[in-house]
Amino acid sequence: MPSIDINSDLAEGFGQYLCGDDDAMLAIVTSANVACGFHAGDPEIMARTFKIAKERGVTVGAHPGFPDLWGFGRRRIPFSIGEIERLFAYQLGAAQALATYSGHRITYVKSHGALGNIAETDPEVAGAIARAVRAVDRSLAFLTIALSQQEKSAAEAGLRTVAEIYADRGYDEAGHLIPRGQPGALIADPDEATGRVLAMIQAGAIVTANGKHLPTAISSVCVHSDSPHAVETARRLRARLAAAGVTIASFAQ
Amino acid sequence: MPSIDINSDLAEGFGQYLCGDDDAMLAIVTSANVACGFHAGDPEIMARTFKIAKERGVTVGAHPGFPDLWGFGRRRIPFSIGEIERLFAYQLGAAQALATYSGHRITYVKSHGALGNIAETDPEVAGAIARAVRAVDRSLAFLTIALSQQEKSAAEAGLRTVAEIYADRGYDEAGHLIPRGQPGALIADPDEATGRVLAMIQAGAIVTANGKHLPTAISSVCVHSDSPHAVETARRLRARLAAAGVTIASFAQ
Amino acid sequence: MPSIDINSDLAEGFGQYLCGDDDAMLAIVTSANVACGFHAGDPEIMARTFKIAKERGVTVGAHPGFPDLWGFGRRRIPFSIGEIERLFAYQLGAAQALATYSGHRITYVKSHGALGNIAETDPEVAGAIARAVRAVDRSLAFLTIALSQQEKSAAEAGLRTVAEIYADRGYDEAGHLIPRGQPGALIADPDEATGRVLAMIQAGAIVTANGKHLPTAISSVCVHSDSPHAVETARRLRARLAAAGVTIASFAQ
Amino acid sequence: MPSIDINSDLAEGFGQYLCGDDDAMLAIVTSANVACGFHAGDPEIMARTFKIAKERGVTVGAHPGFPDLWGFGRRRIPFSIGEIERLFAYQLGAAQALATYSGHRITYVKSHGALGNIAETDPEVAGAIARAVRAVDRSLAFLTIALSQQEKSAAEAGLRTVAEIYADRGYDEAGHLIPRGQPGALIADPDEATGRVLAMIQAGAIVTANGKHLPTAISSVCVHSDSPHAVETARRLRARLAAAGVTIASFAQ
Repeated sequence: MPSIDINSDLAEGFGQYLCGDDDAMLAIVTSANVACGFHAGDPEIMARTFKIAKERGVTVGAHPGFPDLWGFGRRRIPFSIGEIERLFAYQLGAAQALATYSGHRITYVKSHGALGNIAETDPEVAGAIARAVRAVDRSLAFLTIALSQQEKSAAEAGLRTVAEIYADRGYDEAGHLIPRGQPGALIADPDEATGRVLAMIQAGAIVTANGKHLPTAISSVCVHSDSPHAVETARRLRARLAAAGVTIASFAQ
Repeated sequence: MPSIDINSDLAEGFGQYLCGDDDAMLAIVTSANVACGFHAGDPEIMARTFKIAKERGVTVGAHPGFPDLWGFGRRRIPFSIGEIERLFAYQLGAAQALATYSGHRITYVKSHGALGNIAETDPEVAGAIARAVRAVDRSLAFLTIALSQQEKSAAEAGLRTVAEIYADRGYDEAGHLIPRGQPGALIADPDEATGRVLAMIQAGAIVTANGKHLPTAISSVCVHSDSPHAVETARRLRARLAAAGVTIASFAQ
Repeated sequence: MPSIDINSDLAEGFGQYLCGDDDAMLAIVTSANVACGFHAGDPEIMARTFKIAKERGVTVGAHPGFPDLWGFGRRRIPFSIGEIERLFAYQLGAAQALATYSGHRITYVKSHGALGNIAETDPEVAGAIARAVRAVDRSLAFLTIALSQQEKSAAEAGLRTVAEIYADRGYDEAGHLIPRGQPGALIADPDEATGRVLAMIQAGAIVTANGKHLPTAISSVCVHSDSPHAVETARRLRARLAAAGVTIASFAQ
Repeated sequence: MPSIDINSDLAEGFGQYLCGDDDAMLAIVTSANVACGFHAGDPEIMARTFKIAKERGVTVGAHPGFPDLWGFGRRRIPFSIGEIERLFAYQLGAAQALATYSGHRITYVKSHGALGNIAETDPEVAGAIARAVRAVDRSLAFLTIALSQQEKSAAEAGLRTVAEIYADRGYDEAGHLIPRGQPGALIADPDEATGRVLAMIQAGAIVTANGKHLPTAISSVCVHSDSPHAVETARRLRARLAAAGVTIASFAQ
C-alpha cells in the first residue's frame, strides 16, 4: 500500500470572521493549504496556522487565489497572464515570510478557487502559475488535481508535482471533476466517499462515474474544511485509510 | 569624503493611479524603497520597479506600511505589537518574492509613513519591526532615520543599520525631524537643502536648527519622489554631492 | 409600564462569511441595526436583511462604522472630523437606497464600534455624526446610549433621540459603560441581565454598579447577536419583559 | 439647433491619488458623472466634487462601477444579475446622500467602465441596472450611449433616457463604438472629433465609419477627463459647439 497525504484548505478566515474548525482539522490532515490574504486569510490567521501546524508536524503550503475577498476567490476575474504570475508570486512570498516568522517553512503551493479551476484546463493560466512558482522558488512542490493541465504545466516547468484526488467529488470520463450542480458531482455519503478514495488509491487510478480507470499517481486526498460535517468526514477518512493499511503522511516528508 | 547612498520611496502607485515619476527617479537614486501593497503599490508596479532597478543597478528595499490605501499609510492606526510584526513580515515576504521573480533581490527594509513615524520614537513598535525583519531574514540591512529609536532597536536585534538624513527637513535639538507645520520643518530651497546635506556629511553629524552638531554615521540621504520638483531636486543634490567629491553609491554594494 | 424596543447589530457578515444567526434574531428584535459595508456587511446581506425585516415588521436603521473590515470597525482610526461626516453620510445613503430597493425604509441611525465608542464621550466626533445625519435626512431618529455625548449632540442638532441601555453591561457611577476587562463590565448571567433591564425600565433610570439611579428616558435595549448564547439570551429577555407587562415595540412605530 | 449637454467622468481619484484635472473640467462640462467609491472615488472627493459642481451650476449624476479599485472598474467581473442590482443601488444611494450633504442633488445615473460596456449589449445586465435605478428613485434620468441596449432597457423600465455620443470614438455600421484597438476606434484629432459631433447633432443621427446615418435623439456628448489633452479638447469642443449656435446646457435643466 502506498503512503498518502491528506490536505485541506485552512486559514480561510479574515479578521474576526472564521471559516471552519481549523484547530480540529490540523489534528487530522498532514498538509495545510494556507490562504494568503487575497481571497481569504490575513497575517494573523496565517501566522497562527503556521505555528500550530509546526507544533503538530503538519506540512504547510501557500494557497494563493484571486484578489476577491467578497467573492472568496470564486469569481472568474479576467486577469492577464502577467498579472496572474505576479499576484501569485506576491502571495507566495507573503506566505513564505510568515511561515519563516512562525518557525515553519512553505514546502509546496496549490492554487485556490476560480484561479485553480481555470488552471485545471487552461494551459496559459496553468503556465503562468508554474512560471511564478519556478521564478520564486523552484524547490517547491506543486499540489494539483491529478490529470489536470496544471499538473502538466508544473511538470513542464520542472517543478515536482503531487497529484491529489477529491474525496467527495465525482469524475467524468475524461478525469475531470463533474461540475457542481450536475448529477454525480457530489458524494454526500462519507462512507461511500471513503470507499471511493480507497478504491482509487488501490487501483492507482481515477475511477470515473462509469467505472473507467484512468491510471495516475495519487499522492494526496483533499478534504473540505468548511462544510458542516467536514471534521467528522475527515476523521473517518483518515481512520479508514489507516485501517486499510495505508500510511498517512505528508508528501513532503 | 565618505560614500553616500541616495534613497527614495518608489512604486507608490496603485492600479491605474501613479504617484511621482519613478522612471526619472530610478536614474538618480542608488536605493529604491518599494511600497508593498498595503498603503500603496501592487504586484504590477512592484515587479516593474524591481525590473528597472535591476537594469540600472539600483538597490531595492521593502517599504512596508499600514494597510490603509485610502490614507496612503499616513493614519496612525492602533495595531497591536504582534499585528505589526506580522503585517510587516507579510509585506516583506511579498516584496522578496516579487524581487526574485523580477531578477533582483531585496537587500534592506525601511518602514513607511505613520508606521515609521511611530517607530521613530516608540521602543515597542520599533522592537516589533526589528523582530519581524530578523525572523524573516537577518541578513537584511535596516535603513532608518539617524539617531532614531528604530536605529537603536534594529541594532539591538542584531541587524545591520544604515542611517539616513532628510535633505529637505529641519532637525530639532534632540535630533528629531521638526514636525511638519512647525517653523523650520521644511527646507524649501533646493540649494539650501543640498548645502545642509553636504555639511552634515562632512561633519559626520546631524546639524540642528540651532546649529548644534549631533555626531552620527550618515550612510544615506532620503529624497522625496512625489513633490512637484522632486526629480529636479534629486538631480541637483546628486550632482552637487558628486561635485564635492562624495562618492554616490548604494550602502549595499 | 412603558413600551420598549429591542435592537441588535445585524447583517455583520461579508461575502461568504457569516456572523451570528440573523434569521433567529430577526424573529426576536424590533429594530435591526444594519452594517453598511465599511466594517462589515455588503450589498447582498444588507438587502436580504432589509427584506426579511420588512416581512417580519422589524424596523431597520443604518449602522455605519469605520472603513476597517479587517478590524471589524473596532480600531480607533484617527479620521478627521470632516472625514467622519462624509464616511457616515456615504454609508447612510447606501443603506437608504438598499432598504428602498428591498421594499423597506431606514428610519434611524446608530454608530458602530470604535466610531460609536469615541462619539460616546467626544463632542467633536459626536457633533460630526449628528451633522452628517441632519444633512442627509433630518427625519431620522438617532439611537444612542442613554446619557452619552452622542445623545446630547444629536438632540442639539435637532434630531429625535432614542436612548438605549445594554442588557449585559455594567455602568459606572457617571453612567458610562464599565470598559471591558474591568470588574463588573459584563453581566454573564442572562437572568441577572434581564432582571437589571427590568429594574432600569421600571426605575426610568440607569442603575450603576453601586446602585445609584441616574434618571433617563429608556426606549430601547441592545442585545448582542454574535455571542454563543445570543439568540437564547435575547429570547429570554423578550419573554421576561413581556411577562412583566412591558410592551415590546419599535420606537419607530 | 438643439440644446446639448457635455458630460464627463469625474471624482475618479482615491485618497491621495488624483485622476485628471477635475477643477478645470467642472468649468467646461454641464454634467458630472461622479465615481461612487467602488472602482474609484471616496467620500472626500465625492463631496468636494458635488460642492464645486453646485457652485458652478453643473448637474451631477451617480456613476457606479464594479468593485475593482485595482482594475479601475475595467475588468469584466462575472457578477450575478441580482448582485449587479444591489451593488448599483448601494453606490447610487451613497452618491445621493453625499450630494445632499454637499447641498446638491443627484438627478441622473450612468454606468461605468466594464459594467457599462457589458450593459451596452447585454439585456440581462442592462435590465438589472434599470431595475435598480427604478427601485431606488424612478425620477432619475438615465444617461446612456445612443442606440444601446441600456437605452432600451431603461426606457422599458419607465425611466427617462438621455442619449449620449462620444466625441472621440468611431462608430460601426450597427451604431456601436468600434472597440479600442481596431482601426477607426479613436479620433485623435480634436478638430475632427468636434466636427463629427457637430455633424451628428445637426443630422440627429449617429454617423458611422462608412458615413451611414442612424437616426437617434442626441442629448449629450461625453468627453474624457483623464487623457493628456482632455481639458483642452473639452474646451475647444464647447467653444465650437457654441460658435455653431448650439445651446450648451444640462439635460436636467
